[in-house]
Amino acid sequence: HFGIWKKGGRLFSALVAMNILLLGCSLITSGSLKEVPIHESEVLVYLSVLMSLSILWMCFQMFFTNKHHDSVLFKDCHAGPIWLRGGLLFFGICSILLDGLKIGYYVGYITCVSSLLIIYPVIQLVFVIVQTQFLWMSSKHCVQIHQNLTRCGLMLVLATNLAVWMTTVTDESSHLTRELLEHLKHNYTDDENFTLESSIEDETEQKTDCECNSVCHLLKEAYYYLYPFSLEFSLFACAMTYVMWKNVGRLMDDNIESPHHLKLSSYRQIPFAGLACGVVILFLGLVLFVVYELQLKDKHRRAQVLLTFYTFHVICLSLMSIGALAGSIIYKYDKRQMDNQKNPSRTLDVALLLLATIGQYCISYYSIVAMVASDPRDPLKTLTLIYSLLMIIQHSLQNVFITEGLHRQLPEDWPRQHMASLHPPKNESHGLTTGSHHCPVNVPGTRKLSRSARLSKRLSVVSIKAALSTPISTHRKRRRLLREICVFMLMGNILLWILPAFGARLRFDNHLEVKFYGLPTWVLITNICLPFGIFYRMHAAACLVELLLLP
Amino acid sequence: HFGIWKKGGRLFSALVAMNILLLGCSLITSGSLKEVPIHESEVLVYLSVLMSLSILWMCFQMFFTNKHHDSVLFKDCHAGPIWLRGGLLFFGICSILLDGLKIGYYVGYITCVSSLLIIYPVIQLVFVIVQTQFLWMSSKHCVQIHQNLTRCGLMLVLATNLAVWMTTVTDESSHLTRELLEHLKHNYTDDENFTLESSIEDETEQKTDCECNSVCHLLKEAYYYLYPFSLEFSLFACAMTYVMWKNVGRLMDDNIESPHHLKLSSYRQIPFAGLACGVVILFLGLVLFVVYELQLKDKHRRAQVLLTFYTFHVICLSLMSIGALAGSIIYKYDKRQMDNQKNPSRTLDVALLLLATIGQYCISYYSIVAMVASDPRDPLKTLTLIYSLLMIIQHSLQNVFITEGLHRQLPEDWPRQHMASLHPPKNESHGLTTGSHHCPVNVPGTRKLSRSARLSKRLSVVSIKAALSTPISTHRKRRRLLREICVFMLMGNILLWILPAFGARLRFDNHLEVKFYGLPTWVLITNICLPFGIFYRMHAAACLVELLLLP
Repeated sequence: HFGIWKKGGRLFSALVAMNILLLGCSLITSGSLKEVPIHESEVLVYLSVLMSLSILWMCFQMFFTNKHHDSVLFKDCHAGPIWLRGGLLFFGICSILLDGLKIGYYVGYITCVSSLLIIYPVIQLVFVIVQTQFLWMSSKHCVQIHQNLTRCGLMLVLATNLAVWMTTVTDESSHLTRELLEHLKHNYTDDENFTLESSIEDETEQKTDCECNSVCHLLKEAYYYLYPFSLEFSLFACAMTYVMWKNVGRLMDDNIESPHHLKLSSYRQIPFAGLACGVVILFLGLVLFVVYELQLKDKHRRAQVLLTFYTFHVICLSLMSIGALAGSIIYKYDKRQMDNQKNPSRTLDVALLLLATIGQYCISYYSIVAMVASDPRDPLKTLTLIYSLLMIIQHSLQNVFITEGLHRQLPEDWPRQHMASLHPPKNESHGLTTGSHHCPVNVPGTRKLSRSARLSKRLSVVSIKAALSTPISTHRKRRRLLREICVFMLMGNILLWILPAFGARLRFDNHLEVKFYGLPTWVLITNICLPFGIFYRMHAAACLVELLLLP
Repeated sequence: HFGIWKKGGRLFSALVAMNILLLGCSLITSGSLKEVPIHESEVLVYLSVLMSLSILWMCFQMFFTNKHHDSVLFKDCHAGPIWLRGGLLFFGICSILLDGLKIGYYVGYITCVSSLLIIYPVIQLVFVIVQTQFLWMSSKHCVQIHQNLTRCGLMLVLATNLAVWMTTVTDESSHLTRELLEHLKHNYTDDENFTLESSIEDETEQKTDCECNSVCHLLKEAYYYLYPFSLEFSLFACAMTYVMWKNVGRLMDDNIESPHHLKLSSYRQIPFAGLACGVVILFLGLVLFVVYELQLKDKHRRAQVLLTFYTFHVICLSLMSIGALAGSIIYKYDKRQMDNQKNPSRTLDVALLLLATIGQYCISYYSIVAMVASDPRDPLKTLTLIYSLLMIIQHSLQNVFITEGLHRQLPEDWPRQHMASLHPPKNESHGLTTGSHHCPVNVPGTRKLSRSARLSKRLSVVSIKAALSTPISTHRKRRRLLREICVFMLMGNILLWILPAFGARLRFDNHLEVKFYGLPTWVLITNICLPFGIFYRMHAAACLVELLLLP
């Protein structure tokens, strides 16, 4: 058989992953619905089986890779950069902490709960440790032997992570919805006409039979704050596994050793202005968040604190939009050539950015429709409308900015490199050297100069001549400005990740959309879309870190 | 600026399409919910605006292309094959008929309904005509000038078609759900414990004020049967527009004129055995469908007719699975090289096939979970379980079979061509000639022989020597067998498209999943997933036609 046709193996493993995932999806959604006779235990058994299989495969793969030195001949230096692996490690440690707290919590109730509730976090603990180890070691590998088995294994790990992510999202959403319902029930029984189902108590009923000291409750309080980190761990692991999957069977040259990006960039100046603005925004946002959470329950101050928080969001989003717009404009004047090399990590980054945008777009459009259709004379309604519009604008501009940035070639001593690419050394068999930035060129991915490339060369000679006439210092200034913008936007995205991830639900607290769509519909819309919105922020932050570390 | 970097323009137009689509999505879903104060009229206004803009742009584009002969220098011969354009024309004619009937229906009520309900089908009529004309003329074009404007225009057309598709799907789903609720209400008020909301009447209330002769009702009856065709028209148009969008700015050689596939294949034998089996299955299925629809309302014969219909489905799916499996095994022994050329049409075909599979997978897994969780001693439950499992198996096998088939290179006088590819003429600048089948080779897409390709050549020389030793007649036989299988599966897919598209809702009629999940949840699941399942069948049929016409 011909080993070149990767699509067959990919198709099979993708089908395996789809099946695992959709079975998981149907179990998880059924488990979360109260009227369906599927309970948490079935879901946990399914996930435990998946995680055990993943652990076994990862151990086998690590053992096998260590033993057979020809199983990994090539490495993709774009994959698994140090900051991504560092992030994975950090979120992994938080996940381990979460699992530890969960074990402690359920051990407190050991007499009256199913032992499955203790076994599950133990398995998850092992899974997180093994996976962090596995991805740290082999995220750059381009596996060459047992390709189809490896693809299936990686897809199993990917599907397991996504299933775990879905479960955690469902768990957290139902927790927040329950809190919200309790809040609404206490405050708005008469004066508002919400249709509240009396389905809040049955969750806590089970626990009342049990006895536990106050430590249990504290543990539960604590571990809800670790959920956002656990969610990010699953998503980081998914992204790294996907890139490994794409790299299975890829042939590339790794004669050139690649130094880490971090080392290179640490010599450069720190963008102080952007950092200062970003830290101010971040600090202000966090203070306002605490004030908001504390005062929201106070009926008299409620309107005031909502208006303040909305105004802060509007200002923050406006500044970030202006930053992204300015960045895009600077890129327009930047005559660097685009890097069109094959790069699975980057393609994934851009695709995920676009897909995750859908979540926040969706909520915003629903909100806009509601605000426009109802009478918009209320200041809170106007603010909500502006907030939703700015959300859409900011997401769009930021996507354009990040995509443009990720596709730029190396600016460092750029004209020299560029000229070299126009006259590539004939004896090099593996294509263009232009886009190599500290990295082995990937052989099968790069295309040799075809007719259109030659045409573009002629075009670019003209533009290089133009570019060389402007002094290098202009380029330096532009680049510094871009780095300032990047840092500011990074801080902004981290802030806008923290706020919803740790429970600020502006779209619920204003009671506007809830009234328009009715509680069940709005809960459904936000519970589906918000996780993607939160993921978008973290992913955008990761992309901005990458932009920042690019020399 | 550098024209080579297409991703910037693509990103912008993709963002435009996403925004149009998500606003449409929020309007359409809000419009379909009764408790939300957004009505049909807002949705129709939005769609009318979109369609008018699309009509204007398409007219401008056709005029512009006719005037400036250098706007389209290249054509992609893979795009818009004659059978796809023929299908578009057929579904277009059905859509025009549907719009005509709609106009006639609302003209009957002209005194009491909003004039918007008449204006909308008129605009849609013009839209369908202009779009059919536009896509017929220019689906193969690789537009070279005004690239960004063209991309945005195409994305506008794509988004409009998807929005129209969503509206029609919502309309049809709510129609079927209403029929179902009425049916359930009449038959199961006491003996079954469905939670029926009394929300059926308010739809018909409006009409009772109006007077119309019986022709109106006949028109309405008639036009519901045309909905499936209108849905397919939108999807065909979407697929063709997407391929045009991918081809904007693509440079390729079109010196070689491409004869149509149809002409080539018409000389070959008709696969009688496959055709006969397929026609038998199709005929039997249609007869059973009519019997099923007539006898389902009869309480006594209900169980009998359900069992028969399920058994027929199980047999049909088993045969199709065996066919696909046999086809895949034949491909395994078929040592033709894979065609790895760039081909947006094919990439789209495979991606759509996989994405559309999710719909039917989802329903099947939900059904499996329900059947396994409830006591499965009932024969109907066992049949439903087998049916769902077979659905998953059949989809998976069929996807593997179609993907393998679409990636095969030309078999006709294959060894000679293959040998030629191993020693490509040096003076040809545009890469491999192997995969050209009657078609200009696309210059920027094809990669020159890189290191891995050279490696594979060495491998393939060995396999060719092996292949040449087996007589050509074996290849012929295999190919004939594949064509028989293709024809049979084509008929099977058409049958499985007709049944759900024209209203057979097995998953509702058995009352098993509905009881398990509750009516609202199951309606939500099927209304979201079933349109993709129906689309899958039509798309798989289209892919099988392509496989069949490939020489």
